[in-house]
Amino acid sequence: MKALWLETNTIDVRDVPQPHKPDEALIKIRKAGICSTDLELVKGYYPYTGILGHEFVGEVISSPLPLGEGLGVRVGDRVVGDINVVCNQCEQCLNGRPTHCENRTVLGIINRNGTFADFTQLPIANLHKVPASVPDEMAVFTEPLAAALEIQEQINIKPNDCVLLIGAGRLGQLIAQTLALTGCDLRVVARHARQQELLKKRGIRIVSEEEVQPGRWDIVVEATGSQSGFSLARQAVRPRGALVLKSTYKGEMNVNFSSIVVDEINIIGSRCGPFKPALRLMESGQVDPTVLIDSEFSLGDVLQAFERAAQPGALKVLIQP
Amino acid sequence: MKALWLETNTIDVRDVPQPHKPDEALIKIRKAGICSTDLELVKGYYPYTGILGHEFVGEVISSPLPLGEGLGVRVGDRVVGDINVVCNQCEQCLNGRPTHCENRTVLGIINRNGTFADFTQLPIANLHKVPASVPDEMAVFTEPLAAALEIQEQINIKPNDCVLLIGAGRLGQLIAQTLALTGCDLRVVARHARQQELLKKRGIRIVSEEEVQPGRWDIVVEATGSQSGFSLARQAVRPRGALVLKSTYKGEMNVNFSSIVVDEINIIGSRCGPFKPALRLMESGQVDPTVLIDSEFSLGDVLQAFERAAQPGALKVLIQP
Repeated sequence: MKALWLETNTIDVRDVPQPHKPDEALIKIRKAGICSTDLELVKGYYPYTGILGHEFVGEVISSPLPLGEGLGVRVGDRVVGDINVVCNQCEQCLNGRPTHCENRTVLGIINRNGTFADFTQLPIANLHKVPASVPDEMAVFTEPLAAALEIQEQINIKPNDCVLLIGAGRLGQLIAQTLALTGCDLRVVARHARQQELLKKRGIRIVSEEEVQPGRWDIVVEATGSQSGFSLARQAVRPRGALVLKSTYKGEMNVNFSSIVVDEINIIGSRCGPFKPALRLMESGQVDPTVLIDSEFSLGDVLQAFERAAQPGALKVLIQP
Repeated sequence: MKALWLETNTIDVRDVPQPHKPDEALIKIRKAGICSTDLELVKGYYPYTGILGHEFVGEVISSPLPLGEGLGVRVGDRVVGDINVVCNQCEQCLNGRPTHCENRTVLGIINRNGTFADFTQLPIANLHKVPASVPDEMAVFTEPLAAALEIQEQINIKPNDCVLLIGAGRLGQLIAQTLALTGCDLRVVARHARQQELLKKRGIRIVSEEEVQPGRWDIVVEATGSQSGFSLARQAVRPRGALVLKSTYKGEMNVNFSSIVVDEINIIGSRCGPFKPALRLMESGQVDPTVLIDSEFSLGDVLQAFERAAQPGALKVLIQP
């Protein structure tokens, strides 16, 4: 089959054998999405060799379980999939933190071939059936939408909270849509005109970096992954407020921990989130990620797709095998 | 009156006018304690000029309120005092965060003369009467004991949690005593023999740095203020665990925020705490800070006292005017 292969900071499209683990479902990719993590992996953020990609919607081609015995998923179903494949035996798994499994492989990120390919594989337990009313171009956003919802798995966002979101790119837009549902007083720092336009269409208010009042925000979500974004976030959060880190950060950053102590700031790292609520919010129409679609490329043109996705302000680029 | 004056990184004992703000209580210092923050202030951690010192027990000499109308404190009472003097009008005060008052002065730290002197002053609202059964050499620990208790104001420490405390100095010992009361599985990294001995006497278990298993601790409290202490703490905390920063940190520190995000770590800065519970725990005998007393000096010998307090492993050095 055709696939996008990453090796020592270089990507190319090549023919690779179709996956064939007998204990996992075989899934034909219908659509896959390019995420900032993919771009960072190409730059060497984490040493990964294999097929890139972890955002997808696909069709179950074969299943290790006989039909009818499955966990709600059958051959022929459209599915999305949790990207962490876990052991169910380590201390993290046994303590209810499977996304932190010590023996995990991660689709297209850690020791597991990903989704920029004709086919991929995942255990049946990772799969979620996509409701009929959620089209492919929406379902392909399930993974990043789940990541946005992880914030609310970690902290309680109260309707009365003043919340600042810094960054309104691919993930930032989904975070903005989900935070807005809480009723909180949300403002978003968005650099690019297209990002601002999308937010305004949903009635989400923009704030410029210069207008951000220091020390006034109950919760600040940093979604740029840059030192300047972090500095603005740190400056904006109020004493005893929460600073949520929701991005991929390159290398080390300098932090003045004395001020973190004096102001009793709570810094929270945030990663993968729950798929079922993400599907529910799209099914009910409360979140609409399709407005983020920038462009769609065939798998053969995936290198051009990556170039497009890397352009400043580019939103979601999709791949169709 | 005699006082220890700090100016441009130099301390000396000098004669200064007795304080005389008519709207504050005048307090005769009975005992004062040297804290690591005092040592850092001398080194220039924060630009402060004035009388140093914020840990004290004293006697109310005069009060702005007529006798009998006070807030539970009268002339002649032995008292301890909250170190933050607040405006009750700013956004922090009005939202229940008075220790973060935007217009605060802080005893011996920010724009307010401290306690290494014959007398000090504080508003009546800052004072807490010391129970008769709590002697001066115990009451003088109220402020740091309150700071230790702030951890439990911020996070819920469950009896089933594995908790690692790094650092067993002046503040660390008080943190160890209070954390142990939760019933949690507590281990303490203590470098000095005297520190280890004090912990063992209370049945608190020691762990060497080499024995600290990485990624296993539900909660890690960092009380050394050093980059190496922070690195050990970061390594020790489990995914989705809490890392409490309970110290004075010099300058900036390098942190790998990618790993904070991937492991979804919660970093919490922690500062001043509640005085009433600190007094209760000493009154009931559940916490005994007096075992930490290293030595006691007269106010005239306060420079020698500071030298003693700065020695590695030195515990609490007290000053008596």
